[in-house]
Amino acid sequence: MEAAAEARAAAGLTRRLRPRPAREGVLDLAGNDYLGMSRHPVVVRAAADAAAHWGAGATGSRLVSGSTSLHAQLEEELADFYGTEAALVFSSGYAANIAMVASLGGAGTVLACDRYNHASLIDATRLAKAAGGHVRLFGHRDTEEAAARLSEATLPHRLVISDTVFSVDGDIADVAGLARVCRAHGAALLIDDAHGLGVIGEAGNGSLRSAGLANAGDVVTSVTLSKALGAQGGAILGPRRVIDHMVQTARTFIFDTGLAPAAVGGALAALRLLRAEPERAQRVRAIARHLSASLNAAGLRASTPDAAVVSVLASSPDAAVTWAQRCCTAGVRVGCFRPPSVPDGRARLRLTARADLTDADVERALEIVVEHS
Amino acid sequence: MEAAAEARAAAGLTRRLRPRPAREGVLDLAGNDYLGMSRHPVVVRAAADAAAHWGAGATGSRLVSGSTSLHAQLEEELADFYGTEAALVFSSGYAANIAMVASLGGAGTVLACDRYNHASLIDATRLAKAAGGHVRLFGHRDTEEAAARLSEATLPHRLVISDTVFSVDGDIADVAGLARVCRAHGAALLIDDAHGLGVIGEAGNGSLRSAGLANAGDVVTSVTLSKALGAQGGAILGPRRVIDHMVQTARTFIFDTGLAPAAVGGALAALRLLRAEPERAQRVRAIARHLSASLNAAGLRASTPDAAVVSVLASSPDAAVTWAQRCCTAGVRVGCFRPPSVPDGRARLRLTARADLTDADVERALEIVVEHS
Repeated sequence: MEAAAEARAAAGLTRRLRPRPAREGVLDLAGNDYLGMSRHPVVVRAAADAAAHWGAGATGSRLVSGSTSLHAQLEEELADFYGTEAALVFSSGYAANIAMVASLGGAGTVLACDRYNHASLIDATRLAKAAGGHVRLFGHRDTEEAAARLSEATLPHRLVISDTVFSVDGDIADVAGLARVCRAHGAALLIDDAHGLGVIGEAGNGSLRSAGLANAGDVVTSVTLSKALGAQGGAILGPRRVIDHMVQTARTFIFDTGLAPAAVGGALAALRLLRAEPERAQRVRAIARHLSASLNAAGLRASTPDAAVVSVLASSPDAAVTWAQRCCTAGVRVGCFRPPSVPDGRARLRLTARADLTDADVERALEIVVEHS
Repeated sequence: MEAAAEARAAAGLTRRLRPRPAREGVLDLAGNDYLGMSRHPVVVRAAADAAAHWGAGATGSRLVSGSTSLHAQLEEELADFYGTEAALVFSSGYAANIAMVASLGGAGTVLACDRYNHASLIDATRLAKAAGGHVRLFGHRDTEEAAARLSEATLPHRLVISDTVFSVDGDIADVAGLARVCRAHGAALLIDDAHGLGVIGEAGNGSLRSAGLANAGDVVTSVTLSKALGAQGGAILGPRRVIDHMVQTARTFIFDTGLAPAAVGGALAALRLLRAEPERAQRVRAIARHLSASLNAAGLRASTPDAAVVSVLASSPDAAVTWAQRCCTAGVRVGCFRPPSVPDGRARLRLTARADLTDADVERALEIVVEHS
């Protein structure tokens, strides 16, 4: 491990913990706080109130002492917002994905997975494989190859597993197409809508409704509470029988301390704000499109966003690091993704739109990113 | 899945989400809030202040936007309290265990594991196995068999992996003995001190110091922030080079949203309270010993506690469920563990001592548990 670490350090590629600046005046286009909920006073107040009423922690597993009526309320309102029968809250999106895939995809199951799925889905798939599942990759966003993987499957149970919005470039899967393929092959569709909730769909209801799959009996969705909802945690949404099955079997639910009441309260307040102000979802998408168009117009190679993420290619990993550092010094924090964190091996900056950015904020961010490219 | 669920439901063994009662007057001996920190006003206030200052969520990975100076402060003070060089905070103890084992135990590694290790360590071991590690179990708390597993190992890297305090019965591993075995066989020791922090050792410094292993170069420890510290999250403690390696490689660190500031602030306040009032650790152990002695004196079969957990055997899974329900109705919440959640297949109640219980609380709890047995 140390030789590898030294080589990375010599190449200037060592990952460093960069504390988020507390000072005013730094524009943050690096996080996933898409709707600006994390610092919304109503959300912050709800988090504080929940800690005061229920305690700073959940104190135990959801099955023992860690469930409060606040958890149940959030689950009910999340399911209603998504249009599913039920929801179950976890302590993180990572935990939710491990539960979703490992509980539904063990022995006797073929798991057909997009090659660029998020690390948490990949780890979840590894656990399913360890339990006897057969993992088959298909090309990124390649619905036809997903169908081919299912056609070849000889095991009785079949799953297709994909992100909806892929986190690095913000490109999206053809969820409706994947659902059709699943039905044609008797498969269930497991999707991670972490970057879709609050962003995709007219009112931010996520990828399930916008693909016409609300309340589908053969689709299960995971989301996070830490992106558009500005708090922490994850959830699984789907048919009641699937959620009940999770309660009985999901190890990251049963053997994990429940989500802290402050995060539950914060996420619930953010969800209610989003329902009251659905224009937040429209604004974040509009800002992302504007960022992309302006960067391309300036001669950079920016992705065309379907959600809130815009990636801009850099000429090399070193160039990406320097570019991001210069932007930060100039007052704009952007993400910097480079191998091995990116599946295609290409270094890029990652900019995330936020619904609470002013037009002037957006123009200032654009100026700085272009000037330091 | 549905036939199994029906069989479980028919046997009265279906797991149900039981909301924690909000009403006063219910004594909670079910959670892991060992020091009563979860509802301590200083801890709750610190959680609220952290949300107000830093936001309700961390907004992204610790490597991108999710690190604050509060995270760094907690890591510094945790390491100082444990006596290790460094610490790294995760969003849960589950995530910390997956990171610890999967990052250190891939191809070329033999992982010798206590048969009764926690589910999170088992899942972590499965991921290490998927990456090429060889997993070898040894008998519960059997240090000699651990040595035998290492003697048989032919791979160059060797790990011994164990809980310190086992969560169901509260019995403890011989950590110093395991460390000696590790040194004799060139192995590193990975221990989960989730139930030891704040409880084990004169001042609650956990199992590392009490075993004389503070700052050992070949021991890595995970803890949770959701038990004695009353908040949420987990951490890994150990040599600086190991923590640096985690930052570079641990997938549940790199690809997970950072721990919410409210949980960081709450845990930090609880840690400072514990350091100011080390008698909390002594009191929780004294209450656990008193619970055990009194239950045994009443003719029940209670474990002899080394930490804060006392388990009491029931005659059958059904009897355990009924017993726990009657206690709850009478005003005392206790845990109810039964197959398949318990490795030895024996149903029991699980009582956890809390430092903030009054003597009268303890006597009332004892009366109710004995009366309804």
